[in-house]
Amino acid sequence: MAVVATYTDDQPRRPSIQSLVDLVSGGMGEVNDLILSKAGSNVELIPEIAKHLISSGGKRLRPMLTLACAEMFGYQGDGHVTLAASVEFMHTATLLHDDVVDESDMRRGKLAARKLWGNQASVLVGDYLLGQAFKMMVDVGSLEALRILSTASAVIAEGEVLQLGAAKNIATTEADYLRVIEAKTAALFAAAAEVGPVIAGQSVEMKRAARTYGMELGYAFQLVDDALDYGGSSADLGKDVGDDFREGKITLPVVLAVARGTDADRDFWRRCLEGEEIQDGDLEQAIELLKKYDALSETVERAKDYGNKALAALDTLPSGAHSDALGDAVAFCISRVS
Amino acid sequence: MAVVATYTDDQPRRPSIQSLVDLVSGGMGEVNDLILSKAGSNVELIPEIAKHLISSGGKRLRPMLTLACAEMFGYQGDGHVTLAASVEFMHTATLLHDDVVDESDMRRGKLAARKLWGNQASVLVGDYLLGQAFKMMVDVGSLEALRILSTASAVIAEGEVLQLGAAKNIATTEADYLRVIEAKTAALFAAAAEVGPVIAGQSVEMKRAARTYGMELGYAFQLVDDALDYGGSSADLGKDVGDDFREGKITLPVVLAVARGTDADRDFWRRCLEGEEIQDGDLEQAIELLKKYDALSETVERAKDYGNKALAALDTLPSGAHSDALGDAVAFCISRVS
Repeated sequence: MAVVATYTDDQPRRPSIQSLVDLVSGGMGEVNDLILSKAGSNVELIPEIAKHLISSGGKRLRPMLTLACAEMFGYQGDGHVTLAASVEFMHTATLLHDDVVDESDMRRGKLAARKLWGNQASVLVGDYLLGQAFKMMVDVGSLEALRILSTASAVIAEGEVLQLGAAKNIATTEADYLRVIEAKTAALFAAAAEVGPVIAGQSVEMKRAARTYGMELGYAFQLVDDALDYGGSSADLGKDVGDDFREGKITLPVVLAVARGTDADRDFWRRCLEGEEIQDGDLEQAIELLKKYDALSETVERAKDYGNKALAALDTLPSGAHSDALGDAVAFCISRVS
Repeated sequence: MAVVATYTDDQPRRPSIQSLVDLVSGGMGEVNDLILSKAGSNVELIPEIAKHLISSGGKRLRPMLTLACAEMFGYQGDGHVTLAASVEFMHTATLLHDDVVDESDMRRGKLAARKLWGNQASVLVGDYLLGQAFKMMVDVGSLEALRILSTASAVIAEGEVLQLGAAKNIATTEADYLRVIEAKTAALFAAAAEVGPVIAGQSVEMKRAARTYGMELGYAFQLVDDALDYGGSSADLGKDVGDDFREGKITLPVVLAVARGTDADRDFWRRCLEGEEIQDGDLEQAIELLKKYDALSETVERAKDYGNKALAALDTLPSGAHSDALGDAVAFCISRVS
């Protein structure tokens, strides 16, 4: 069993994702090659859009989870590479459709695909990548991995529809919100991790532990993202701050602040998020309210709780370099906001 | 071997889809129950939209192909029912996304889902139905059927992207256009038919024949649709005429008329379809040109050629009631326009 420290604020060094990146770099090279080749098509627009997204440099955390959770069991085949590429395609397809649904202008500091090629192409290229993802999974030939990933695919879409209902509704409860992020974020992290021991032919216990690790990390990751969108617990007004606010998204910081606020505060949130009548100074006022009611710091605390559950799940998995790196990944995710 | 008559214009009776409907009615009852149950979700919007589409009464030709192509081999399990429901979900997801991409207002004589619930919900519920389709396929457990249907899913999306490029471009060639309809229509008909003998454990020869039948029928079906959009070969100006024209879609009748037209005719097509500057009387003029250059009647002739290839493929499949009904289905598809 791995001995993994519980996450605390006084880490000896700045947590880094580098140990995980280094450990799976061989497999990730193959994943990246496969992604580029499977994003190809004779229909020119497809590789053009796919490469725009793929080269725009996400961290590729999800496929790294798949690789690490297979390699930690000494898995020697190449099925984990194909599954990891499928997971990244599922994620990329979701991003393309999300940007259309959210009417987003930017994605990872670049113009969103829909601004460059239009909503139509974004919807259809997303569909293509999803189809390719399933084809790749079928190539691997594990019905269990197919079950896990196809279930995640349906659950993610269900979560997005749920979020659509919660959007612009400040009556959203904490339970509603957690249901949304379990579906739209944590489910894919969970599936990405679980298919590692599946392809490596491991026991139910190992599969369950990997799934739990991924799920809890997914919650932590999303809550940190939500806090970062308001500048994090320090609430610095960085350049990428306020997207959720402008899009009327109800995230946990807002849910907490609404619940604790006065009637006047609620009127403010209602005007900005339901009515989308946002004026100069409103974002600053929102952040003021989030700080006043400790909504950002508490969101970060919840993220740490989920992070600790992820670390606890690692105790069941084999100790060693992979387990350590997966532990570092948890600390890294949370350190983005601390 | 089945003895199937070649399609001719002097059929003794009006061809009907009824023999196929009657033959697979038991299985279709189960398919419809499965569709309703799998379109369910705790997220209310999902069954609401799914049921709107499902109850709006398409002919369900694709799932009937799957049932007939399994039952013709005496298949006794229920895998064909699940695969048939998957096929219908794939098709429904495509319709939801198509309406968003085409900015359509109507679908099967009802308001399109996107007009009732918005583009966002249409994109996401389409994704959900696609995820459910894959989950159902995984339940059946045939990797070969999964390969065929996931490939169709990627090909359909590729065809839609290709069509996006061809849209509003009167330089589209006949070869370009056939490539589009092979991908966006014929591929799913082919897959729907092929998974029948696959689930029934049949030989490569039978699988290939079923696939060919579906593919050729799919071409015929789409070409008939294209002709019907301009009123069919008789060019009656019915109520559902002109959607493709108004959306700037380049279909085979237009490709043929553009190729045969004068410079002035091409200016007309360019103004209407590329520029989308459609004035009163333009649709009538378009139909006039299509008639003048025999573009509608020739489209129907091509559909008959494909229909005859579908009938020829039936010769390889077992003769009997199923083969006869599949032959009637070809004649029915073509009779819609004759």
